[in-house]
Amino acid sequence: MYLMRIGAPGAEKPVVRVDDSSYVDVSDLVTDFDESFFGSGGAAGLAGPVAERIAAGRTESFGSQRIGAPIARPHQLLCIGLNYRDHAAETGQAVPDEPILFTKSPNTLIGPNDDIRIPRGSTKTDWEVELGIVIGSRTSYLDSVADAAAVIAGYVLVNDVSERAFQMERGGQWSKGKSAETFNPAGPWLATPDEIPDVLDLDMTLDVNGVRRQTGNTRTMIFDPFFIVHHLSQFMVLEPGDLINTGTPPGVGMGFRPQVWLQAGDVVELSISRLGTARQSVIGPR
Amino acid sequence: MYLMRIGAPGAEKPVVRVDDSSYVDVSDLVTDFDESFFGSGGAAGLAGPVAERIAAGRTESFGSQRIGAPIARPHQLLCIGLNYRDHAAETGQAVPDEPILFTKSPNTLIGPNDDIRIPRGSTKTDWEVELGIVIGSRTSYLDSVADAAAVIAGYVLVNDVSERAFQMERGGQWSKGKSAETFNPAGPWLATPDEIPDVLDLDMTLDVNGVRRQTGNTRTMIFDPFFIVHHLSQFMVLEPGDLINTGTPPGVGMGFRPQVWLQAGDVVELSISRLGTARQSVIGPR
Repeated sequence: MYLMRIGAPGAEKPVVRVDDSSYVDVSDLVTDFDESFFGSGGAAGLAGPVAERIAAGRTESFGSQRIGAPIARPHQLLCIGLNYRDHAAETGQAVPDEPILFTKSPNTLIGPNDDIRIPRGSTKTDWEVELGIVIGSRTSYLDSVADAAAVIAGYVLVNDVSERAFQMERGGQWSKGKSAETFNPAGPWLATPDEIPDVLDLDMTLDVNGVRRQTGNTRTMIFDPFFIVHHLSQFMVLEPGDLINTGTPPGVGMGFRPQVWLQAGDVVELSISRLGTARQSVIGPR
Repeated sequence: MYLMRIGAPGAEKPVVRVDDSSYVDVSDLVTDFDESFFGSGGAAGLAGPVAERIAAGRTESFGSQRIGAPIARPHQLLCIGLNYRDHAAETGQAVPDEPILFTKSPNTLIGPNDDIRIPRGSTKTDWEVELGIVIGSRTSYLDSVADAAAVIAGYVLVNDVSERAFQMERGGQWSKGKSAETFNPAGPWLATPDEIPDVLDLDMTLDVNGVRRQTGNTRTMIFDPFFIVHHLSQFMVLEPGDLINTGTPPGVGMGFRPQVWLQAGDVVELSISRLGTARQSVIGPR
């Protein structure tokens, strides 16, 4: 199943995608794709009603409606750093022994085709195509990596936008460079795990102004999604609807010589197999 | 005004403290002391109704009711590191040039007298008495430090519990050592700014098993609350109800020789002038 949220920012309604052009409205069945929804069974409860509505012809057309992030603002937005071998190399940092955890402000979450706003004072705004994990139930101290699959509600395409000067040159911890308004476009949809034959074989791309900048595949992750969820559950309680950005493959702007940074007027297009495509215009500071 | 939340975990009701033994119930006026409350005027709207109820004798006794954190789980829980000169020295780290930002999982928030649970695998669980700032309105790009006072809803006593091995030895970023369940006792109350004659002259203490471990005063902060709020607003959007832990004075367990860590059975008692006292028992891992 493919969960989406469509409508104006802050007023999105939950729908289930049928195909590229049509959806089933489920806003009468669930309030939102939020902590309460994922914590009370999530998408499984929609399968029957959605099948009935498709059979009855109760589908609607996307038309030109805005697509929001496929989940409501999460309790926390966790990120794994340096999780692709080649990306660690391009940043000049060692391959980590265990997942590096940092966080973003949850209110950075925006729709897949919304604008990315350059922060005031920014000189080094950068892109990162990433596989996002959405947590499906309250999770603490998983016994094994194998137990992680049962607590993953689905996967989502994410751009983990980053301001490298704020991240690296402003005190040592990374959150300052990850939390600016609009810095976490996500979607177009959340794909439930049954829609993904092999989460460790998903192609990833990111273009800036039509130039291919990132090419990767989840098979080169250092720590896979199940390892990450098990690992994080040893340090904190994960809540339903929490979003985990799992790191980016090579090709970020910081890695080029000379380095390349996003500017107002740029267009970023990204994709992950089975998770759709997203397109963000870059705009100047407010 | 002093805001409190009392009742069972997850079912606290909002009240206004009258004195040590009595309060006015405002749960018919506001749902909770949460983002919506602080974002729509906050405590100011309660002044009239509370005065009327006190005049009418409509106060109730705390009795043995549990005290919860004085605010609902926030959108984000931000922390400033190494913000007292003497504390930076005791940890062997340089005084920072600007506030060091790190984060905790918001679901670490518990009541002031709830138990602190040692995480599994912990060897270095530590205490930190801190002044917490609660944000009063959606805030971004404050023009000046002087503008910060208008967006502060109040202040709260916090214990920023930390696992030093998880914080310092597990990947370089600090969140893993700050986010365990129960790691952010807060309260007993939120004091609105008008109740605090000088936020830069508040005495702070923390005892473990009756032994004084931390003695400080907010006047030795490197970056004061107004500087911190202005600074953070340049990097992210602060939401109403967000909680900012502003750093700890000297005397954490990590700073002693030999170092001292919390153990199951320990009792931690802390206080800040005008923000009350809190008492936490330490229990073993689950």
